[in-house]
Amino acid sequence: MSGAPLKDRAREFFAELQSSICAELEAADGGAQFGEDRWTHAPGGAGGGGGISRMLAGGKVFEKTGVNLAAVTGRLSERLAERLEVAQDDFFATGISLVAHPLSPMIPTAHMNFRYLELPTKAWFGGGADLTPYYLFEEDVRHFHRTWKAVCDRHDSSYHPRFKSWCDEYFFVKHRDEARGVGGIFFDYLSDDLERVFSFVREAGREFLRAYLPIVERRRAEPWWDAQREWQLIRRGRYVEFNLVHDRGTLFGLETGGRTESILMSLPPLVRWSYDQRPTPGSREADLLAVLRTPREWV
Amino acid sequence: MSGAPLKDRAREFFAELQSSICAELEAADGGAQFGEDRWTHAPGGAGGGGGISRMLAGGKVFEKTGVNLAAVTGRLSERLAERLEVAQDDFFATGISLVAHPLSPMIPTAHMNFRYLELPTKAWFGGGADLTPYYLFEEDVRHFHRTWKAVCDRHDSSYHPRFKSWCDEYFFVKHRDEARGVGGIFFDYLSDDLERVFSFVREAGREFLRAYLPIVERRRAEPWWDAQREWQLIRRGRYVEFNLVHDRGTLFGLETGGRTESILMSLPPLVRWSYDQRPTPGSREADLLAVLRTPREWV
Repeated sequence: MSGAPLKDRAREFFAELQSSICAELEAADGGAQFGEDRWTHAPGGAGGGGGISRMLAGGKVFEKTGVNLAAVTGRLSERLAERLEVAQDDFFATGISLVAHPLSPMIPTAHMNFRYLELPTKAWFGGGADLTPYYLFEEDVRHFHRTWKAVCDRHDSSYHPRFKSWCDEYFFVKHRDEARGVGGIFFDYLSDDLERVFSFVREAGREFLRAYLPIVERRRAEPWWDAQREWQLIRRGRYVEFNLVHDRGTLFGLETGGRTESILMSLPPLVRWSYDQRPTPGSREADLLAVLRTPREWV
Repeated sequence: MSGAPLKDRAREFFAELQSSICAELEAADGGAQFGEDRWTHAPGGAGGGGGISRMLAGGKVFEKTGVNLAAVTGRLSERLAERLEVAQDDFFATGISLVAHPLSPMIPTAHMNFRYLELPTKAWFGGGADLTPYYLFEEDVRHFHRTWKAVCDRHDSSYHPRFKSWCDEYFFVKHRDEARGVGGIFFDYLSDDLERVFSFVREAGREFLRAYLPIVERRRAEPWWDAQREWQLIRRGRYVEFNLVHDRGTLFGLETGGRTESILMSLPPLVRWSYDQRPTPGSREADLLAVLRTPREWV
């Protein structure tokens, strides 16, 4: 594939990554298996291409995990062309996105997404990975950030400081004045030296489970009780609020007639909204909130 | 109060309506009681005023019901002034909003909102009421619509046809290609002959429980089982999707720094998102979906 156009190699890489990640997550879960839906752009729409949505539900470890692959073509809407500051042109987009919602409130939710977008005049990569714990285990958060710092530093010493801050800014739930989670990395519009960026994206994609699975393994036997599960359901409500109110990717997908079920695979399986729920000062729940209100340097 | 400015009489009316509705809902529930939070605009913000949020949770009939009252002053943001096609001026806004989420999937969720907005150059009323069933009882839906038609017709024969269609259009969840519920009435920017409109709003406010409570009474003893509760939780997910992705009121509130907990009182207590959940053809769940996909004339 090395002589093939970047768009083909990117699509191939994301497809391989989806397969290998799903296989490893199934093994880690030890219970449920991924189902698969292959979809194409609805006939009548202007776009072409399609994707593969894979979903694991009701596992021993994972209550719900979705891993999406897409490779689509279409024409930019006026609104999107304006937002991207480009002409209203045809586009090709391919990417992988993943959200894992564990059953245990002791295991954090993880999100990962990498994507490549190509226009006649311009192309770029975007993506990242971030962690949303319900209870704070500082060593887990440090491990997650350390993994991303190592990946970034092997490619460009400017990456980690930029991508860590970008992540803290992007995943901020303004109307709650708190971060969605403890961050990770986020980047977008990386268009200089695309081969070099692709090599970074490949390594980041492959390292995602090295950043996440050791945390899953460490916390899977951690005991938890009903009140902690309730706290997890309430915090999951914040996840929904971010994704539906603020997340550009979700809103872009819904607006442009993307496949709703695939886009909303990111939403948690079970969620609670209680009026004005506040943790007891000094509790573990309050410790988490303090960190979400003031993002830290973890490495 | 009859000689007082309209803004004061509107605020007084909404305050009385909140008290009487909460008292009647408590009586209908027969279990839980409303709590109350009085709030004022955060110091440091440019606006004044505040509100009273009342919340009943864990009742015999109502799993969660919130009734909000607000009367606030501030200055229109540039963005909002643009949307409303007015100058960037000071405003006064007062209103009542209610969402009732029953425990039983046999009882529909109800939403009601009436509001008055005043600028130096213009003032108007907006609002409405709509019903979101989980199982379809046609006589209930007909009763709801008949009540609103009667209220409308007593004031202006053009109201009901306009407000019924406006409601069907407003509460449409575009990305699901289905209505949030079976509709009711919705209106906005009613600025001609404000005293006449206020008289309509007063009657509509007072009639809300006449439209809703007979349905609650009729269905409270209806048996239901776990699979029906699950369907309710999934449908509640659509309610969340509408409120967070499409509802102008919710997004306006969050954007302009309104009180988040009061704005999001509308969200259901417990919600499920399952991947690509589809009802069996011919089932009661499929009957509901058919009605949501093609809004009907009920009167």
